[in-house]
Amino acid sequence: MDFGTEFKPLTVQPQEIEQLSFQMITEELGSHDFSTEQYPVVQRIIHASADFELGRSLVFHEQAMEAGIQAILAGQPVIADVRMVEAGIAKERLQRYGGEVRVYISDPDVIEAAREQGLTRAIVATRKACAEAPGGIYVIGNAPTALLELIRLIQAGEARPGLVIGMPVGFVSAAESKEELRRLDVPYITNIGRKGGSTVVVAAVNALSLLAVRRAETDAAHVRP
Amino acid sequence: MDFGTEFKPLTVQPQEIEQLSFQMITEELGSHDFSTEQYPVVQRIIHASADFELGRSLVFHEQAMEAGIQAILAGQPVIADVRMVEAGIAKERLQRYGGEVRVYISDPDVIEAAREQGLTRAIVATRKACAEAPGGIYVIGNAPTALLELIRLIQAGEARPGLVIGMPVGFVSAAESKEELRRLDVPYITNIGRKGGSTVVVAAVNALSLLAVRRAETDAAHVRP
Repeated sequence: MDFGTEFKPLTVQPQEIEQLSFQMITEELGSHDFSTEQYPVVQRIIHASADFELGRSLVFHEQAMEAGIQAILAGQPVIADVRMVEAGIAKERLQRYGGEVRVYISDPDVIEAAREQGLTRAIVATRKACAEAPGGIYVIGNAPTALLELIRLIQAGEARPGLVIGMPVGFVSAAESKEELRRLDVPYITNIGRKGGSTVVVAAVNALSLLAVRRAETDAAHVRP
Repeated sequence: MDFGTEFKPLTVQPQEIEQLSFQMITEELGSHDFSTEQYPVVQRIIHASADFELGRSLVFHEQAMEAGIQAILAGQPVIADVRMVEAGIAKERLQRYGGEVRVYISDPDVIEAAREQGLTRAIVATRKACAEAPGGIYVIGNAPTALLELIRLIQAGEARPGLVIGMPVGFVSAAESKEELRRLDVPYITNIGRKGGSTVVVAAVNALSLLAVRRAETDAAHVRP
């Protein structure tokens, strides 16, 4: 293959591309206050967005990483707000521990109830998710109404998520919903401001499941004689 | 529902949220050089990313909008680089004109050939796509290697896409691949820099298909007596 002399040499192996990207991110980000456990999530989100401002805006509840890893290892389901998020999540790493990805937004009963009650499908889907999996890992990259409803259900004692990854993107209520999330004492990963979205929350879940796999492997190595 | 008094009033109807968001985007973006036809794509990308810098970095080939609308109305398939992009595209608007979304990256023969030849799956998937749909709408939000391969095939005369939406995100070769795309005289929508990704290209496709539907409806109204 020849793309002309003006091109930088092209590394065609995906692992090498990822390695090199991660190096560039670490160099360019410079000093930061994220912990060693949190940093892989930050790094993978910057990798998925090429947005250092977004990376720097991330906020972690102090138990977020440990709770998220434990929830994955316990096989808690990952509740995705939309199909795009579901599509992006590396499922085999969840399945190893009995987990799966669920998305309720297009369920016929959700669509029907939303129409009847004049609510967003995101709100109704969140209610259904909390009824079926109150301890799940909630991943919201889009509708602020989903995150606000989840917060309400947590406050009402109807949900106790293993982890909330709450980064809806947008101009109406997105930043406010995240501000509200940061007031809760539940394990969360979120950010300050309007940015977020499907690719960003997918990056967070995939970073987390990689850490969970590593944890399981380390634990297994220590148990072995 | 009551989220506390510190909350701004919450509009729960998705259409109202979108309307209000679009107004905010137009006000905040201020003056720009995008044409009336291009602007809906810019607006929807900013809506999906909350990133004005990204919005301002968009670059349109002068025939991009018209070619894209015509390709959709002609039922050309939309070739998505990854499953996440496929999941996000509003398919019913394409199906009205005989179009569909295709994604080749996980095809067993693509995976096999990539392994054998030591290439990225993205490159092999692009070759398969160009063999099957040389006039399709190519949507690349992730692998720069897919965009670089598409450029090579266009230059070799093996593809003549209806439109290229080329916005791979990333640190290695992403910006360079877009720079190369901008040198071609083919209909493209791209941007300057590292940013991009699945949500961004999905926003572009969905804005475009809305315009195509509106065009078809306007044309039909003119034909009617």
